[in-house]
Amino acid sequence: MKILERHDENAVCHLHMNAPERLNALSEEMLEALQTQIESLQTDPSVRVVVISGAGKAFCAGHDLKQMTAGRQAEDGGKAYFKDLFDRCTSVMTGLQRLPQPVIAQVHGIATAAGCQLVASCDMAVAAEGTRFGVNGVNIGLFCSTPMVALSRNIPRKQAFEMLVTGQFIDAHRAEALGLVNKVVPAGDLADATQEIAHLVASKLGAAVKIGKQAFYEQAQMGLDDAYAHTGQVMVENMLYRDTEEGIAAFLEKRPPDWSQ
Amino acid sequence: MKILERHDENAVCHLHMNAPERLNALSEEMLEALQTQIESLQTDPSVRVVVISGAGKAFCAGHDLKQMTAGRQAEDGGKAYFKDLFDRCTSVMTGLQRLPQPVIAQVHGIATAAGCQLVASCDMAVAAEGTRFGVNGVNIGLFCSTPMVALSRNIPRKQAFEMLVTGQFIDAHRAEALGLVNKVVPAGDLADATQEIAHLVASKLGAAVKIGKQAFYEQAQMGLDDAYAHTGQVMVENMLYRDTEEGIAAFLEKRPPDWSQ
Amino acid sequence: MKILERHDENAVCHLHMNAPERLNALSEEMLEALQTQIESLQTDPSVRVVVISGAGKAFCAGHDLKQMTAGRQAEDGGKAYFKDLFDRCTSVMTGLQRLPQPVIAQVHGIATAAGCQLVASCDMAVAAEGTRFGVNGVNIGLFCSTPMVALSRNIPRKQAFEMLVTGQFIDAHRAEALGLVNKVVPAGDLADATQEIAHLVASKLGAAVKIGKQAFYEQAQMGLDDAYAHTGQVMVENMLYRDTEEGIAAFLEKRPPDWSQ
Repeated sequence: MKILERHDENAVCHLHMNAPERLNALSEEMLEALQTQIESLQTDPSVRVVVISGAGKAFCAGHDLKQMTAGRQAEDGGKAYFKDLFDRCTSVMTGLQRLPQPVIAQVHGIATAAGCQLVASCDMAVAAEGTRFGVNGVNIGLFCSTPMVALSRNIPRKQAFEMLVTGQFIDAHRAEALGLVNKVVPAGDLADATQEIAHLVASKLGAAVKIGKQAFYEQAQMGLDDAYAHTGQVMVENMLYRDTEEGIAAFLEKRPPDWSQ
Repeated sequence: MKILERHDENAVCHLHMNAPERLNALSEEMLEALQTQIESLQTDPSVRVVVISGAGKAFCAGHDLKQMTAGRQAEDGGKAYFKDLFDRCTSVMTGLQRLPQPVIAQVHGIATAAGCQLVASCDMAVAAEGTRFGVNGVNIGLFCSTPMVALSRNIPRKQAFEMLVTGQFIDAHRAEALGLVNKVVPAGDLADATQEIAHLVASKLGAAVKIGKQAFYEQAQMGLDDAYAHTGQVMVENMLYRDTEEGIAAFLEKRPPDWSQ
Repeated sequence: MKILERHDENAVCHLHMNAPERLNALSEEMLEALQTQIESLQTDPSVRVVVISGAGKAFCAGHDLKQMTAGRQAEDGGKAYFKDLFDRCTSVMTGLQRLPQPVIAQVHGIATAAGCQLVASCDMAVAAEGTRFGVNGVNIGLFCSTPMVALSRNIPRKQAFEMLVTGQFIDAHRAEALGLVNKVVPAGDLADATQEIAHLVASKLGAAVKIGKQAFYEQAQMGLDDAYAHTGQVMVENMLYRDTEEGIAAFLEKRPPDWSQ
């Protein structure tokens, strides 16, 4: 059994975290496995959409506290180890955003601390009813400082702050209302509902989705004029794709497009 | 029949897009007509509020795909033409935000791609029940990269991303919940409901609205300290208006203000 | 009777604005009293949470218009006075955000103009049913330019704009839906509901809450990579606290933590 199972089907890559006995904690092994897949997906033209899910009772419960505690044995009390650990975690989280393919979190059970960050770091998220979300590190004296980077770019400020300082959970419907997840479905429909979105996105022109996803996060960090200057260039480049010419022609001729990819 | 009808009444300028047979597409002619009006309004003290609406079944269906396709005939495959086209479109979208007057989109039917961007680029929007919004260029292989600049500054990140990569529509009530429109009303009440807001805004002191609107978008792009430094200066300038002095005096004396403008 | 009463209990500092006859206006005296307490709290390790409330019918009705009008008598028409006044107001608003302790607004009645800014500037807010919120300076010719700095960092863009140019109030439930308040409760439960959150936050490890609150607002102003670089360092520092080591150990051993602070 691998700690992270990969299963590709119909241009959708399923990454299934498989350490249910540790609630799919982001252990060194899990982070390394995710990083390896992210690097592989970065240049894999056969994959158009990525879905991340978890085995067992929880989607992901955050960092592996036993490993972190063991890391304290070093001479520096763990300082270098922790820095390296958080760097690797950040690399995974930002790596998902930098993938050319849209990434969907398929969430059930609980998503806490860095597990909640993982949901926030995906481009979209579908959650089962009953799922609970929390950035509850504050309960054990470790404020969820890196998770809040992703969380606060998903939901409004006061609501993010409340979750961070109270450590309280929110349920799936509240997460949807705040913007953390796109859709809530009955637990039994979770895989199907996620698949449906994945297939819909996979049916689009991959080159357009890729250039668009990249520009989405780039422009979000720019002022208005820079954002338009940048996305204007992206639109020109997109217009010059042969497949986009075909897509527009097909639309005008009311027929399905015949795309090369 | 003009492609863009202008009708001024009671300090409210109505710009009515009138190319129903093309779903009020942002053709070269429509963009030029809008640009001309924006430039005129920039220095028109008689207008306090602008309302943009559309004739026929749709508010606006985005770019004119036939014109864009014709643009491909150039030697460079349309590259220079597309760049120029997107520049002119951006000039209209940012021009609305830079107008001294608040701009209200009065939306019905559909608002898609650059038409949805037009809604997002207005300061406020009122929508008829049944209106559908989409940034659906991805369906024809052309990611809505410039529309997302405006959209992602109106609604939460994951919900914007979903609209962009799925190409799916959202209805008026969902648009309101996400922040894209201010108010949803029955179709038969659309013009009246928009008028009501327009007249309310037009009844305010124009100089205060003007300085405030400008500062609103400026401070939004600044860090907290710079935003306060800037708006603090704006408040001082506003306080020194003779009409503001009168407005405050009238309030303290419980009488209506006698404003010069 | 002091204009601002302070009452500390169980590590919660209650700041109670007590100028009900002026609707707790942010007069020179009130701003000075708030500033004094903020400076005192900045270095007060006995306080873990701050609650701001108001006496009488209103939480806070904004600036003191009589004082501002009196300020016009200076040779410069009040220019220097107004600049100084807005600077002091900004110092209070940003000072709340820079406090090491989370600050909760306990809001009832009305919160208008700089009073609404005060709510937006607190880290969290609980409101009584029936509370009305407005940035209604535009009604007297004075656009709420500094209040909008805080407001527009709490709620979506179009909804903030509407409040600013129409001067209309929103009720507590709308404020909650938009993100301006965290929770709405019956008026009779306001103090208890606020206390409950305050005690919950006060029960957490103070050092973790302090480092987390500071990082929350710092990272919010950064691009993604800088935000992660910064919060990664914060997480390492947090991990090295003796009390955090104890908190994690206690969690793994399923016992309550024995924290030194």
